[in-house]
Amino acid sequence: MTDAPPSPRSDYDRAITLRPTTTPGRYAAEFSDQWLIGSAVNGGLVMALATTALATRIGEVGGHLDPIAFSGYFLTASQPGDVVVDTEVLRSGRTLTTGQVSVSQPGRGGIPVERMRALVSLGDLAASAVPIRAQAPPPMPPPEDCVSSSEQRPPGLEASALLDRLDLRLDPATAGWAVGRPSGRGEIRAWLRLADGREPDPTLLLLALDGLPPVAFDLGIQGWAPTLEFTAHVRARPAPGWLQLRVTSENLSGGLMEEDAVVWDSTGRLVAQSRQLCGVRVPDGYTVPG
Amino acid sequence: MTDAPPSPRSDYDRAITLRPTTTPGRYAAEFSDQWLIGSAVNGGLVMALATTALATRIGEVGGHLDPIAFSGYFLTASQPGDVVVDTEVLRSGRTLTTGQVSVSQPGRGGIPVERMRALVSLGDLAASAVPIRAQAPPPMPPPEDCVSSSEQRPPGLEASALLDRLDLRLDPATAGWAVGRPSGRGEIRAWLRLADGREPDPTLLLLALDGLPPVAFDLGIQGWAPTLEFTAHVRARPAPGWLQLRVTSENLSGGLMEEDAVVWDSTGRLVAQSRQLCGVRVPDGYTVPG
Repeated sequence: MTDAPPSPRSDYDRAITLRPTTTPGRYAAEFSDQWLIGSAVNGGLVMALATTALATRIGEVGGHLDPIAFSGYFLTASQPGDVVVDTEVLRSGRTLTTGQVSVSQPGRGGIPVERMRALVSLGDLAASAVPIRAQAPPPMPPPEDCVSSSEQRPPGLEASALLDRLDLRLDPATAGWAVGRPSGRGEIRAWLRLADGREPDPTLLLLALDGLPPVAFDLGIQGWAPTLEFTAHVRARPAPGWLQLRVTSENLSGGLMEEDAVVWDSTGRLVAQSRQLCGVRVPDGYTVPG
Repeated sequence: MTDAPPSPRSDYDRAITLRPTTTPGRYAAEFSDQWLIGSAVNGGLVMALATTALATRIGEVGGHLDPIAFSGYFLTASQPGDVVVDTEVLRSGRTLTTGQVSVSQPGRGGIPVERMRALVSLGDLAASAVPIRAQAPPPMPPPEDCVSSSEQRPPGLEASALLDRLDLRLDPATAGWAVGRPSGRGEIRAWLRLADGREPDPTLLLLALDGLPPVAFDLGIQGWAPTLEFTAHVRARPAPGWLQLRVTSENLSGGLMEEDAVVWDSTGRLVAQSRQLCGVRVPDGYTVPG
């Protein structure tokens, strides 16, 4: 017999587990090396952890618990190790509670280095009515007819632990970049679920929105595309099962591109959308392929 | 003879004029009734003021001065009167400086009430190269063949002072809602400039992105559409002259809709884009027109 809470069975639930601290609104957590993409902890996980912390804080004082809008500014790359999450409730209204979250890790000499700061509005997605207007999901072959990223790893990301956490199936029509034939259209479509079968919820959608390879790959631009700013809108609670995703980009200039993601659940309902501004290293003499 | 600085000739420059205070990073300003839309000060002006304050702060310590990414969460409606803007620099990097801004006004008993909190990254738009990919502006009749909002005021906004500050010309193809015939497509296109002829700059683009009537009007939904969250990306310095705008929406559910805006300058170059999440009051028994 023990009074310890049961250990979460899901990798994801373990990764967003928070411990209270003696400072009001402050929580402690740990980033494991199981969520690395390249040399940094996946930004989607940082966003999910931040949102969980704010919802925990709001739950203590009473308020809304589902993420509705999330804007995160990424300041430095997150690393495996100790994490501190500071939360502040800015306003509690009738339908929304808005707060601020700061994610930091100890740097040299233990001095905190801020990884991400975010503004977040939480509400109640159960109150969401049937959508009046919504983007329909694009036609795609079923997951079993798509390209599994565990078989066909993106160039340069072969050893990324994040890809072992996700079951990612790329639409063959938008996966040419994985075999050296980027389309130049700037679009990647995929099915996504957690590899351990843990079902999606509103907070996990933040991870999903940032879970696909950089859309720059479909423009023939390799390498890491660090997120500077990421804003997500969660529109409904996802049904169990696969999530369907589409990421696109229309504007690339000055070493920056926008990347728009949309997520539909297994019933075809639009459940979240996002836009991020990310950095890209455009090779000299680059021209858009296709 | 006087030592007072020259009064800005432009209404807009007067509206974003800041006074230093004795508190580091804090500035004072005033909202006039000249920027009211309905019963609140226009959110675009709040964003432009916040960005100006952060750029002023960063200018004092050295850093980047052009807005690149801006995410504002609107907490309460701004009113004419005294304003306090608090700024905090979070990180100064090689290409970007990121900070936080809080805009507040004195409430009952002088207790500050926060109007908006924002995260902002600033950089140097002069470094922006020729765009590699960019959305092209839609074909539109020239401003002189469009519908002037000073002649045809949106229903319910006939007396809004903001409309006197702007020279707004609606594309007749997307202005049916102004005469009771919304298209149901969820799109409004327009030309925009300041009525006093003040030329656009990067910070003014934040005002422009929020300067059109709510796209809900084109869905036949009247009334105020309060912004909950607004994120803008500024991609280039605008050339002098008219700005061309398009706002669209694809998703409406649970009393919330996203509104995407794109701005091109007079040379047809994409200079900024934004997405906001706003509240809409959908009438009982509503169906999308058209």
